[in-house]
Amino acid sequence: MPDTPLLDRVNAPADLKHLDVEALKALAGEVRDEMIDAVSVTGGHLGAGLGVVELTVALHHVFETPEDILVWDVGHQCYPHKILTGRRDRIRTLRQGGGLSGFTKRSESEYDPFGAAHAATSISAALGFAVARDLQDKDHKVVAVIGDGSMSAGMAYEAMNNAGDLKKNLVVILNDNDMSIAPPVGAMSHYFARQVSSKSYRDVRKLGKGVAKALGVEGAARKAEEYLRGMAMGGTLFEEMGFRYIGPINGHDMDALVAVLNNVREAEGPILIHCVTQKGKGYAPAEAAADKYHGVSKFNVVTGEQAKKKPNAPSYTSVFADALIAEAEADPSIVAITAAMPGGTGVDKFSERFPDRAFDVGIAEQHAVTFAAGLAAAGMKPYAALYSTFLQRGYDQVVHDVAIQSLPVRFAIDRAGLVGADGQTHAGSFDIGYLGALPGMVVMAASDEAELVRMVKTSTLIEDGPSAFRYPRGEGIGIDIPSNPEPLEIGKGRIVREGSSVAILSLGGRLQESLAAADSLSAFGLSATVADARFAKPLDEDLILRLAREHEVLITIEEGARGGFGAFVLHMLAEKGALDAGLKIRTLTLPDVFQDHDTPDKMYDAAGLTAKHIVARVLETLGRADDAAAALA
Amino acid sequence: MPDTPLLDRVNAPADLKHLDVEALKALAGEVRDEMIDAVSVTGGHLGAGLGVVELTVALHHVFETPEDILVWDVGHQCYPHKILTGRRDRIRTLRQGGGLSGFTKRSESEYDPFGAAHAATSISAALGFAVARDLQDKDHKVVAVIGDGSMSAGMAYEAMNNAGDLKKNLVVILNDNDMSIAPPVGAMSHYFARQVSSKSYRDVRKLGKGVAKALGVEGAARKAEEYLRGMAMGGTLFEEMGFRYIGPINGHDMDALVAVLNNVREAEGPILIHCVTQKGKGYAPAEAAADKYHGVSKFNVVTGEQAKKKPNAPSYTSVFADALIAEAEADPSIVAITAAMPGGTGVDKFSERFPDRAFDVGIAEQHAVTFAAGLAAAGMKPYAALYSTFLQRGYDQVVHDVAIQSLPVRFAIDRAGLVGADGQTHAGSFDIGYLGALPGMVVMAASDEAELVRMVKTSTLIEDGPSAFRYPRGEGIGIDIPSNPEPLEIGKGRIVREGSSVAILSLGGRLQESLAAADSLSAFGLSATVADARFAKPLDEDLILRLAREHEVLITIEEGARGGFGAFVLHMLAEKGALDAGLKIRTLTLPDVFQDHDTPDKMYDAAGLTAKHIVARVLETLGRADDAAAALA
Repeated sequence: MPDTPLLDRVNAPADLKHLDVEALKALAGEVRDEMIDAVSVTGGHLGAGLGVVELTVALHHVFETPEDILVWDVGHQCYPHKILTGRRDRIRTLRQGGGLSGFTKRSESEYDPFGAAHAATSISAALGFAVARDLQDKDHKVVAVIGDGSMSAGMAYEAMNNAGDLKKNLVVILNDNDMSIAPPVGAMSHYFARQVSSKSYRDVRKLGKGVAKALGVEGAARKAEEYLRGMAMGGTLFEEMGFRYIGPINGHDMDALVAVLNNVREAEGPILIHCVTQKGKGYAPAEAAADKYHGVSKFNVVTGEQAKKKPNAPSYTSVFADALIAEAEADPSIVAITAAMPGGTGVDKFSERFPDRAFDVGIAEQHAVTFAAGLAAAGMKPYAALYSTFLQRGYDQVVHDVAIQSLPVRFAIDRAGLVGADGQTHAGSFDIGYLGALPGMVVMAASDEAELVRMVKTSTLIEDGPSAFRYPRGEGIGIDIPSNPEPLEIGKGRIVREGSSVAILSLGGRLQESLAAADSLSAFGLSATVADARFAKPLDEDLILRLAREHEVLITIEEGARGGFGAFVLHMLAEKGALDAGLKIRTLTLPDVFQDHDTPDKMYDAAGLTAKHIVARVLETLGRADDAAAALA
Repeated sequence: MPDTPLLDRVNAPADLKHLDVEALKALAGEVRDEMIDAVSVTGGHLGAGLGVVELTVALHHVFETPEDILVWDVGHQCYPHKILTGRRDRIRTLRQGGGLSGFTKRSESEYDPFGAAHAATSISAALGFAVARDLQDKDHKVVAVIGDGSMSAGMAYEAMNNAGDLKKNLVVILNDNDMSIAPPVGAMSHYFARQVSSKSYRDVRKLGKGVAKALGVEGAARKAEEYLRGMAMGGTLFEEMGFRYIGPINGHDMDALVAVLNNVREAEGPILIHCVTQKGKGYAPAEAAADKYHGVSKFNVVTGEQAKKKPNAPSYTSVFADALIAEAEADPSIVAITAAMPGGTGVDKFSERFPDRAFDVGIAEQHAVTFAAGLAAAGMKPYAALYSTFLQRGYDQVVHDVAIQSLPVRFAIDRAGLVGADGQTHAGSFDIGYLGALPGMVVMAASDEAELVRMVKTSTLIEDGPSAFRYPRGEGIGIDIPSNPEPLEIGKGRIVREGSSVAILSLGGRLQESLAAADSLSAFGLSATVADARFAKPLDEDLILRLAREHEVLITIEEGARGGFGAFVLHMLAEKGALDAGLKIRTLTLPDVFQDHDTPDKMYDAAGLTAKHIVARVLETLGRADDAAAALA
């Protein structure tokens, strides 16, 4: 544990008020040490937090949180904030089951007025707080801290456009570390870089004075305005949107930060502070790493060496990437699109092989989907590789630009189902339902990595409309991957195990649990058929009707919320009259709660979607309550 | 019918090639006359099309459509384009059942390479076409025409950010008519206005030459660049995003348009042409009207007088607005938010009464939702009034910023279900499912205008999480509206008519059809119970289980797609074992197709959601096929 004499006396941000700048600098060092040590134990997001240590300390010194509202965008840079806001004693529980969230979270602290884990929400939320404040005749301050990566997202622009118009008192701090998760993309990132490179940082004293003048605190407003414009050459874009621009300032220079924030605190109207930071700052291994230790596993503080979990099987992500590359070798019309997640989606691998056929569009899912639709309309075969949770951002575009036009965009949906430590904000719970509701959409879910490869192949052949295939986060089950995969027949599932009394119909990654359940059911004298539905849409009606007809109980199971696969099965069975004479059917879905973060296994256990839950549900359904209780025990 | 000698000889854009500028001017006049006459017969979007007549003629003269790709944003300004691209003979079928769509539509013409009806998709789609072109070693041109209103949408920014980076040959024409549907909002609109007012339009000859120089066609590139910068003072914002900026030019000046477009056609890289037009141009009544005749009913060409359909009852929109105003009189925490649809959502009325408590954020649904979440987190009671189809744009924000945080944002969902002439792109088909899947969300649907008022009241009392209430487009059924509405009990439906053999459980606006069906069923010897579910979530389990238990047939009906209310009912019945012994249940939903535009009544008939369809379904379910056929006859 690091030696932290100053930090040990900080229980809340109020304890930072009396510290002078030199003490704040020392405190920042201690926060950094504490954070490195904590994350070395828990794993988590390291680089982003290291980049904002000084900024966090300065913000809590200058502003009166929690009365003043501080909204952190994305939230994965909030570990220093958590350390300073009464959560230090739990900081080594970050991202662990029952522990602190890896993001800001309203239910966790009054210092987290708005939770965030998806990017670019902070300015919208902060504007809401600012408008409410004025309607309520209050006078506290509202500050949003947003990364340059988030500035590629349309909603940040929408919020700036609205905020510049409403002219509320609002401070937006652009935390420009020239890197979000991956290197930055898009014209805006070049713009930021030009601003930063076009001048050196100002002398602190001059900067402080200049800002004060510019903001009219010392009068001479007109001259000050000129000064600001001179200082802020390159700030035009934000000024055109109605913000006063200050910067760029060095986000690791405590003198500059405190001077600027003190001045800005008293200023009127929307203000943007362009703050340049270094991701991974102050920890040599992070500074040296290409990804700046964005997300790390447990590591050795001295060497920076991260614990490597020995993988049992390749990840679904890499299986997808390899499969898509294999298809693209033979088909030059295949292109891949990612929205700022090249590594997370495997598009980085595709890009290495086909640099001209891979597109990272930034944190811009709306554009990603319609861009893909344009590519498809022009005869290409676009693969939009997105996490399930982020595809929610492009839903209207899936409906309006893809599905209505029957354009053959392929959605490769990674992180389907529960995702573990990233928790509720990142769970891929809803895509089966929101895609399955769309006419003409083909929706597949892979039960293992070999199936995923077949689905990639299958999707290349779906030319008359959109298709999607979803697969879980993490490793496959370790089976052989076909090198020359057979395409699937559209809308056809498969029987994996033949039984007679009970049918378990699985969509996606719960197939192994279903098979385990079938084994267990034998011990209770029940013979279970297990089927892999493969398709949530179109349904394999023949297969499902047969399962319903030939078994006493039918269980459906999926890694998704209600209104998805099980619902489509029920609709169809009702329509066909297959419920008329009675069917003991149960649809196992994710529960109707947002589950807290934990390991995926524990989350699925809490969700009631493991083998023992299937067994218990079957037994319950058959009226064998005691056996069901035994199965769960 | 107007006299159109030139237009009569135009069968396709190729026929515009040989015309000189004077002839193009005359042709534009004829297109305008033809369009006015056509829309006077059909009703539809008039003002937007009138504003782009010259631009449309010039584009088809200069570019080689359909090889060159022309993408119209939103598409409601495409009537002149339809007239010139082989659809003049059907132009008087616009928006009628079986007739031309009111928007661009791929299935309608090869000149519509990309359909659009929601705003701000054009740059994304055009970039897709441009990237595909280069990968396919083709060399045609790609042009997007986007309105200034659409530039408030984040996805336009996302696309610009990507396009400015990729540097593909791409022409974006900003059609700046200082008005989308309502007057413009947001900082960007001020920016456009500043550009336009900061200088007068250039002399055409000088402009053409200047553009040519600037684009390097005539060499002397560096000097030309300077010239362009001088000319384009104020274009900085777009230039910072990687676009070359040309303008502003007068979009009704055919000389300027043809000169600029001819030059731009040969230019490299992303180019933005700032084109200033006047909505409603050339038709005096439109020019004089506040809304510039954005959307009109049939009208008298000479006087401009629009046919007024005598309303039978107030619209749901105005009932909502009045109810919210009434609540807001007593509760100062109530605020209303619209995304560029003040008139369409009734927020204009609210704004008149409470100007400080109404917020038009622009075409910015992502921001609208999170802005509302921020307001809710700060203790306000925000009502986000959005069309069902547009709420799709804010889905991730509903999940991530509202539902996960249990923030009491109220969603007033207008245009739920089928909407008529606006067709498939505007249908509100999916919200029951995509909202009902979210933990903690309360989802209501109004069966008539009195119910809507009760739901507004109810929503004021839901403090611990989000709620939504949906209601159809158009008029209510004409019943009395309670002045002091009773709030509903959360999750409780109501029996509207007691019967014994058949139960019809309706959610939303199909209640009247359900009652009519009950009447008809009497003639077949069947006594029908009719219930109004009121809540899609939480379900009234007691009511539904009773209906299932006490009737031979249970029909659910809703104005939404599969995976919605009927699905939630089925999930619950399965879970409770209510299907085990048999239940003749049928779930009537919108069909699994995107329905073409027609009147709402005809669309619901095609959807199979009218009284006779309910009757037939009941009879079929009871094995009375002949009676079912008779009921449908």
